[in-house]
Amino acid sequence: MPNKHVVIVGCGFGGLECAKKLEGAPVEVTLVDRHNYHLFTPLLYQVATALLNPSDIAYPIRKIFRDSPNIRFRQAEVTAVDFDAHVVHVANGPGIPYDELVLATGSTTNYFGNEALADAALGLKNLEEALQLRNHILTCLERASAAAATGDTEALAGWLTFVVVGGGPTGVEFTGALAELFHLVLVSEYHNIAPGRVRIMLIEGSSSLLSAFDDRLGDYAARTLEARGVEVVLSKLVTEAGDDHVLLSDGEVVRTRTLVWSAGVRPEDPVAADAVLRSRSDRIEVGPDLRVAGHEVVYAIGDAASVTEDGRELPMLSPPAMQAGRYVASAILGDATGPFRYRDKGTMATIGRAAAVAQVGTRIRLTGWLGWVAWLVLHLYYLIGFHNRLQVLAAWGWNYLHGDRPIRIITRAKGDRTSSSRSAA
Amino acid sequence: MPNKHVVIVGCGFGGLECAKKLEGAPVEVTLVDRHNYHLFTPLLYQVATALLNPSDIAYPIRKIFRDSPNIRFRQAEVTAVDFDAHVVHVANGPGIPYDELVLATGSTTNYFGNEALADAALGLKNLEEALQLRNHILTCLERASAAAATGDTEALAGWLTFVVVGGGPTGVEFTGALAELFHLVLVSEYHNIAPGRVRIMLIEGSSSLLSAFDDRLGDYAARTLEARGVEVVLSKLVTEAGDDHVLLSDGEVVRTRTLVWSAGVRPEDPVAADAVLRSRSDRIEVGPDLRVAGHEVVYAIGDAASVTEDGRELPMLSPPAMQAGRYVASAILGDATGPFRYRDKGTMATIGRAAAVAQVGTRIRLTGWLGWVAWLVLHLYYLIGFHNRLQVLAAWGWNYLHGDRPIRIITRAKGDRTSSSRSAA
Repeated sequence: MPNKHVVIVGCGFGGLECAKKLEGAPVEVTLVDRHNYHLFTPLLYQVATALLNPSDIAYPIRKIFRDSPNIRFRQAEVTAVDFDAHVVHVANGPGIPYDELVLATGSTTNYFGNEALADAALGLKNLEEALQLRNHILTCLERASAAAATGDTEALAGWLTFVVVGGGPTGVEFTGALAELFHLVLVSEYHNIAPGRVRIMLIEGSSSLLSAFDDRLGDYAARTLEARGVEVVLSKLVTEAGDDHVLLSDGEVVRTRTLVWSAGVRPEDPVAADAVLRSRSDRIEVGPDLRVAGHEVVYAIGDAASVTEDGRELPMLSPPAMQAGRYVASAILGDATGPFRYRDKGTMATIGRAAAVAQVGTRIRLTGWLGWVAWLVLHLYYLIGFHNRLQVLAAWGWNYLHGDRPIRIITRAKGDRTSSSRSAA
Repeated sequence: MPNKHVVIVGCGFGGLECAKKLEGAPVEVTLVDRHNYHLFTPLLYQVATALLNPSDIAYPIRKIFRDSPNIRFRQAEVTAVDFDAHVVHVANGPGIPYDELVLATGSTTNYFGNEALADAALGLKNLEEALQLRNHILTCLERASAAAATGDTEALAGWLTFVVVGGGPTGVEFTGALAELFHLVLVSEYHNIAPGRVRIMLIEGSSSLLSAFDDRLGDYAARTLEARGVEVVLSKLVTEAGDDHVLLSDGEVVRTRTLVWSAGVRPEDPVAADAVLRSRSDRIEVGPDLRVAGHEVVYAIGDAASVTEDGRELPMLSPPAMQAGRYVASAILGDATGPFRYRDKGTMATIGRAAAVAQVGTRIRLTGWLGWVAWLVLHLYYLIGFHNRLQVLAAWGWNYLHGDRPIRIITRAKGDRTSSSRSAA
């Protein structure tokens, strides 16, 4: 009897861990992802703020599994899953049949159905968006410099105001890094822009930053950001946005060319809506063994899956996804004992140079320099590949010594020549 | 009397050298470029073949001149020059008046008027094209892997055939690097593609490669490339191209998804066609002091300018551009003595690992390992910025030790949100 064929859709933290645990096991694995790389998303904001190169946090999937003959990779966009025929359909080419299926398709930016906001805002959830954001920020400075040269103060204000929505780790980390970028380049490289003209606003709907953390850590983050020049705006929402302004829930109109949205994510999966049950947060309902309700050979993990423990859904973070990936690999190999249990090892967020917060359980809290070092070590540890670790370590060291963010280039690849719009061979 | 205002259009090798020589001098300089970086074009092919990051060879212009208060930078697309009013017009914002003007606008890929070829081909002349080419090559391998999985041998041949036109340094260097990339990844990462299926064709219209070099060096390059798996096709042209094939001048139809055009460049400048005289090669006619004929305060240098010595036009290469840039700076400062004279210090091209050719005058010729080391040292020396040199040196060292080309990611930035199509502030 041939080995069973496991298809894993998505090579984020969950899918990658699952595939790694299946390396060398008596199963054939096909890993499908729309990108040819695994992305270390926690450092995306450092790409967006000109500190890291995309390749520092994006690792070719084929390279990860080059010595694993039982793991195949297929770069493809999954369009649908036929649960009856056991086939994953993809955009380019024939479907991929499976014996067992792992849905690890992750999440995307959540604009809560507001199309106008989605249209006006920039996301920070994938590499394309991070590069777009880097290009955008640097272009804003160039346009501001041109506006300053002609004395157009109204335009200047728009180019130099940066509104970030969402006071979770992404918003905190991104605004902290943005303040550092401007602090670095404005005085030395944009002689005609007074640094005081720049306005970075971090807008959070609830009454504190980092709501997943202890209140004291959120307060510390807010104080630290404000000391670095970020306006922290709590208990307000952005209700409307256009090309050159946003409207806040208290009626204030802010003239800005930049709205960055980090106010939440929603599951992104290609499964037909009525084939699976979903939680209120739109994640796929799974049982305690992470099998999709009603589908014996299908698992869902990570942001795509609704795993509840003690009546609460696990957060959309990498640790539960990684643990679920390993659990599902065990289940597929028949090694799982008992239901999936998430072990919370804590969360952390960095605010910038020598300042971060970390929380382990309800007792251990770190802030400041110690939290920052813990953050650095942990992120380097989880970053994949010796080469990438070296690169990132070198980039951080360079930044620490020189305060430099060297990737300040505005560049985009020319259009795709291999898309399906070209005639088929 | 205020200092005179010098506008330099283009921050390639010529414009950059000119601006550097004017640092601290009693003139006000505005440097205009469509990009915010100076690009080290000789290493573009290493970006296209996944060895270097864009930021390794692209250096922020503002950073170069951060300590030079008399050099201002303006990122803008120049649309026209009004020689009567002494104004440079740009796409975004008001025109830039000048007292003296330096046109250093460089060159672009020359398709010799063949629109169909231009449409089907990929260029390798700027960073956008290099990134597009990297994405394209890696995508071809992914599509080939999918075609191999379904047994579609015809499609497979198309995805795995890479036609490069032009046997000058760019074509030689690019095909050599491409062979190394495939040698590296195919065996270890694309288990279902036999390396023998890959076909790299280097097509040159004349009877030898590297026609600017001594014949023996061209022969050495051809032999070395062939030993590394590149088919060198001499005395043939590509006459027609479509999405999935090219037609050679001897009637052969080659099924391919990739046509890379490195068969020549043509000057690219925004000057109204009838305002200046042009040479047969479409470069702007200049006098022995590099002033544009009929325009006393306008200079043209580099690929944009037709400089003749001993009855021959200087080649479109960086050394004449750099020397002309320095000469024009002297002329602007009133320090130039006599007409411009180009000092040819030689040319070189690398074929790949431990193989390169170099020629100084008619006597000194280097090949093999020695030529390669000379090439490495010289390119590192001319690369701008300590950080970039470190990065490139590290990348080359890593490549030499591990044979790795780590930037194997397919990525493109999402669309521009700051273009003029957005409503003006």
